[in-house]
Amino acid sequence: MSKESLLDQINHPADLRRLSKCELVELAEEIRERIIAVVSRNGGHLASNLGVVELSIALHLVFDSPSDSLVWDVGHQAYTHKLLTGRNRDFDSLRKQGGLSGFPKGSESPHDAVETGHSSTSISASLGLLSGRELLETDGAVIAIIGDGAMTGGMAFEGLNHAGHLKKQLIVILNDNTMSISKNVGALASSQKWILSNYLSRISATRRYQRIREKIDQGLQGFPIIGMRLFDLVMRIKKGFKAALFKESIFSDLGFEYVGPIDGHSISRMSEVLEEVKQMGKPTVVHVVTHKGKGYEFAEGNPTLFHGISPFSIEDGKLVKGSDYGFTSAFSDSLLDAALNDKRITAITAAMEKGTGLAPFKAAYPDRFYDVGIAEQHALGFAAGLARAGCRPVVAVYSTFMQRAVDQVIHDIALAKLPVVMALDRSGLVGDDGETHQGIFDIPLFRSIPNMTILSPASREEMAAALRYALNDETPHMIRYPKAAARVHPELSSDWVAGRGVLVGPGNARYLIAVTGGLYDEALKAQALLAAEGATVDLYNLRFIKPLDENYTAELFANYQAVFAVEDSSELGGMGEALSSLVLKYGLSTRFAFRGVTDSFYPQASRSELLSQFQLDGEGIAAGMHDLINASRFMQKSLQKEA
Amino acid sequence: MSKESLLDQINHPADLRRLSKCELVELAEEIRERIIAVVSRNGGHLASNLGVVELSIALHLVFDSPSDSLVWDVGHQAYTHKLLTGRNRDFDSLRKQGGLSGFPKGSESPHDAVETGHSSTSISASLGLLSGRELLETDGAVIAIIGDGAMTGGMAFEGLNHAGHLKKQLIVILNDNTMSISKNVGALASSQKWILSNYLSRISATRRYQRIREKIDQGLQGFPIIGMRLFDLVMRIKKGFKAALFKESIFSDLGFEYVGPIDGHSISRMSEVLEEVKQMGKPTVVHVVTHKGKGYEFAEGNPTLFHGISPFSIEDGKLVKGSDYGFTSAFSDSLLDAALNDKRITAITAAMEKGTGLAPFKAAYPDRFYDVGIAEQHALGFAAGLARAGCRPVVAVYSTFMQRAVDQVIHDIALAKLPVVMALDRSGLVGDDGETHQGIFDIPLFRSIPNMTILSPASREEMAAALRYALNDETPHMIRYPKAAARVHPELSSDWVAGRGVLVGPGNARYLIAVTGGLYDEALKAQALLAAEGATVDLYNLRFIKPLDENYTAELFANYQAVFAVEDSSELGGMGEALSSLVLKYGLSTRFAFRGVTDSFYPQASRSELLSQFQLDGEGIAAGMHDLINASRFMQKSLQKEA
Repeated sequence: MSKESLLDQINHPADLRRLSKCELVELAEEIRERIIAVVSRNGGHLASNLGVVELSIALHLVFDSPSDSLVWDVGHQAYTHKLLTGRNRDFDSLRKQGGLSGFPKGSESPHDAVETGHSSTSISASLGLLSGRELLETDGAVIAIIGDGAMTGGMAFEGLNHAGHLKKQLIVILNDNTMSISKNVGALASSQKWILSNYLSRISATRRYQRIREKIDQGLQGFPIIGMRLFDLVMRIKKGFKAALFKESIFSDLGFEYVGPIDGHSISRMSEVLEEVKQMGKPTVVHVVTHKGKGYEFAEGNPTLFHGISPFSIEDGKLVKGSDYGFTSAFSDSLLDAALNDKRITAITAAMEKGTGLAPFKAAYPDRFYDVGIAEQHALGFAAGLARAGCRPVVAVYSTFMQRAVDQVIHDIALAKLPVVMALDRSGLVGDDGETHQGIFDIPLFRSIPNMTILSPASREEMAAALRYALNDETPHMIRYPKAAARVHPELSSDWVAGRGVLVGPGNARYLIAVTGGLYDEALKAQALLAAEGATVDLYNLRFIKPLDENYTAELFANYQAVFAVEDSSELGGMGEALSSLVLKYGLSTRFAFRGVTDSFYPQASRSELLSQFQLDGEGIAAGMHDLINASRFMQKSLQKEA
Repeated sequence: MSKESLLDQINHPADLRRLSKCELVELAEEIRERIIAVVSRNGGHLASNLGVVELSIALHLVFDSPSDSLVWDVGHQAYTHKLLTGRNRDFDSLRKQGGLSGFPKGSESPHDAVETGHSSTSISASLGLLSGRELLETDGAVIAIIGDGAMTGGMAFEGLNHAGHLKKQLIVILNDNTMSISKNVGALASSQKWILSNYLSRISATRRYQRIREKIDQGLQGFPIIGMRLFDLVMRIKKGFKAALFKESIFSDLGFEYVGPIDGHSISRMSEVLEEVKQMGKPTVVHVVTHKGKGYEFAEGNPTLFHGISPFSIEDGKLVKGSDYGFTSAFSDSLLDAALNDKRITAITAAMEKGTGLAPFKAAYPDRFYDVGIAEQHALGFAAGLARAGCRPVVAVYSTFMQRAVDQVIHDIALAKLPVVMALDRSGLVGDDGETHQGIFDIPLFRSIPNMTILSPASREEMAAALRYALNDETPHMIRYPKAAARVHPELSSDWVAGRGVLVGPGNARYLIAVTGGLYDEALKAQALLAAEGATVDLYNLRFIKPLDENYTAELFANYQAVFAVEDSSELGGMGEALSSLVLKYGLSTRFAFRGVTDSFYPQASRSELLSQFQLDGEGIAAGMHDLINASRFMQKSLQKEA
């Protein structure tokens, strides 16, 4: 019988307290190995999780989860937390359909106090939790754990500002890993680049901290005070001294006690400090310094690559298989082409330089590239300003994160009809990251905004054509494209005309499948499947989500007995409903039905599993078209009733 | 011939430079009188505009608009700016249909560098403008003018952070009026409550400032330095001293020079300081202190009331006519009722305590009331935390400002299905404030979000019933209601069933008008008009925007020859499209058409003018129903073609 590992003995955080200091260090190593092993097979967030192994252990040693609540900002660093809270056995299923989520999830465990996936929300959630507990007289500390990158998001600042005002006993762990998703950006970030000083962190977190502070206070109160104005001045000097000694900063301006920086890889140091902070009873920021990728040389060397990674070989850190040429690459290449001859073109990312494919642009045109940090609102407002100055800004952002900047699209861009291009990567069904990362709301969210053009390219060449089309116009454009291979489709090479798609296929069919770009490859498969059944079907690649040339589309649809529309986005407020209203408005006798993503949040699975689940893969689309061909309108209704 | 006023002589900002110091002070008084006179007749933003008369004059004296750009945050304080930039003659038409907008508008004047209406966007816009000008080698300073209230919005912080990083020569005027829309909230705001010190502001803005600064720098460099660690410490002390002397703060942490505070009602002082700042060539925050309502005693005494005000009597500051009992009051009263017996109920506003009707709740339950400042993202995230703790938070916010928190509704609330009630005041067509304040996107924005219930009450009692319904459930609810009178409608007293509306008599008609709550009164008028023509029409008050009981609704519609749906929201992604898809799905032979707000931004006009413009008033709805009764489906199509 082999010796049971320490990790196997941890079924609940309380079990940690039975381990010696040495064993805790050993446990950290076991956890690192476990995380590396599983992520090398399943893919996932590696660098951020390796960075917080010791921090997670220290937090669970000092606080009593779940009665004390640990609120993980973003949530992509909760693997150790999951391993310590009874989920070691299921950890092999990480990010698989039906398995453990890569993010905190209340339905998985009561230890996951707050579900997350997006950045900068932890302070607001924690402050609400704490205020509510106080009102309802419930016990329990609340600890928000937030990276320095997430701190640049405006919502975090709004929360800190309110927290300083409310003066609740909120504990904020500022996990300073010197980079969050990409290299840290902004003045705040650089003001946090303080040298790690063991001496200061030690005194700041012990009783000596309180005593020294009292001494300084007394000393300054002894200053000769000449009139009220000087008193005010002395108060300021006092504050200045404290800032110097205790490295207070923006946080003390906002009403927080500040403790740190502390070595985020020393379990014992952090436990001591956290124990003191727990007793202190004040809103406190604890500044810990960690290293992303800690303990795995390839991740330490390239934390951006190992932020979110596909399966890789542990020995050499290389990806198991190269990825297809995807829409991200097509966008990246098209943008480089366009920028060559137009110096007005600028590119903006919100801390996603690599994920959005902007790294080559940055290398080629560093002066025209802006990483604004995790700050989507500002990214769009800043782009609006660039456009007003005569530039042609291209903002590349994941569809799900664009949800953060809806008002900026309306108020800052569309209202003034500014020529900003918004490139929405990972639109549609995304997969492994689950509920919080699906790009299924962009069509309903942005279609109702006046002055917007929304394009939905279906191929490698259409990606380039869509970008050219957007850049050649003088109004706001959005281009949505999936996390999927961008294939070459010569049949889609016709010119782009506003509001009109491209008809593919034999052309003499009685049935038509209308499709958004992200599903074009699936629709092609459906066409082939139906042909094999003997049903000839044309395809209509919509190209435009908005505008829709209503007359053109109605006349096209009128040529068919049945039209089946499919979209990789929410059915509510999407293209299916828009086309339904068109069919009614023009009184078409064409049978029409549509299918998209139904009204729910969907957990992680691969993109192909999700397409299959929604019957939006080739087979599902073929089956839908088949049903429509064989159904009368009234049968549709009765089918609904039975369903 | 009466003496021409000074204001009449100002056709361009450059004309200011021909006036003496005394005349500039006289001009400020004339401007105050002009603003008070026009706002007393037309309504508008009074207190904020009276506060910045001198600041606006000083800015136009020192900077050359439009080649230098003045970017007014929120934009509700630009009246003086409008009067100084050639719009004095048109100023009587302020906020009237076809007249001057109450906000900056590029189409009105090249001096309006950036269109605004929402808060906290000026820094992003200015930084983009400045960066773009630098890239394209265009000249011109950029000055963002932002109130201390707007500074609490996360987007402003995101912008400041990026600005400190880019180190562009951005000038930010921090207009500290000790309250923005409502009383200022948050730790940041209170850290700005510095005593106005003429002495410090004078030295800080002159060459002496630079000289004293150099002296301090030299003095500190002379300190004995014992090893690197102490050097670091000395650097901090140095920074501390500077902070004390020059009242630096959060802004210097972010990389800005800080100048102030300066008396914001002294044109000469501000001109001197701004002239120096203009030469300084660094990112600078100029802190000016102004008084909202300055020069009009009633506005000074109650700046919250006089923030946005209806027509009033100049003599006694009283409103010309009392307002109807509106939906805001109905919400306010209903919430008080509900809170009486349920201590879990908490209320949250984002600096809109009065506008949203939460003041009585605050008075009754101060411990359960939270004003988070202009910070909608945090408001929703904070509410999510309260809900997790067991509270029943009610967030009251204007529909247009809810656009700021779309991702928080998705990610922080709906994903975890938390029982947060979102009360969306001023949904639908709002009127006088124009494009930026319409509540016409909420249905498309929120209908696609899973787990959401969206209610649309049509009367005073339905408002109360909707709130009870929402609070009795355990999931997220949104209640949208218009800025309109909330009438008593006993015919709407039936019980609420999820997804079902209420049918209003006679019940034996062949035609039906389906309506969202905000248009119910108009639909009633249409019913009466049609009855006078001899056409008997039933009404269907939808009550629910979401969910929609599809079978119930389809069966109801099937009883009618024609159904005409009207909604006070964007046609794109709205109820009309949803009901169209229903009609098709169930293969109904019922003729169906719908009408909402068409796809464009709409300038200011009264609500009734807007309803008439969109044919969403009683007459317009009657005409639409009439047309549908007389049209075949194919006629609808040909009507479209001719249109």
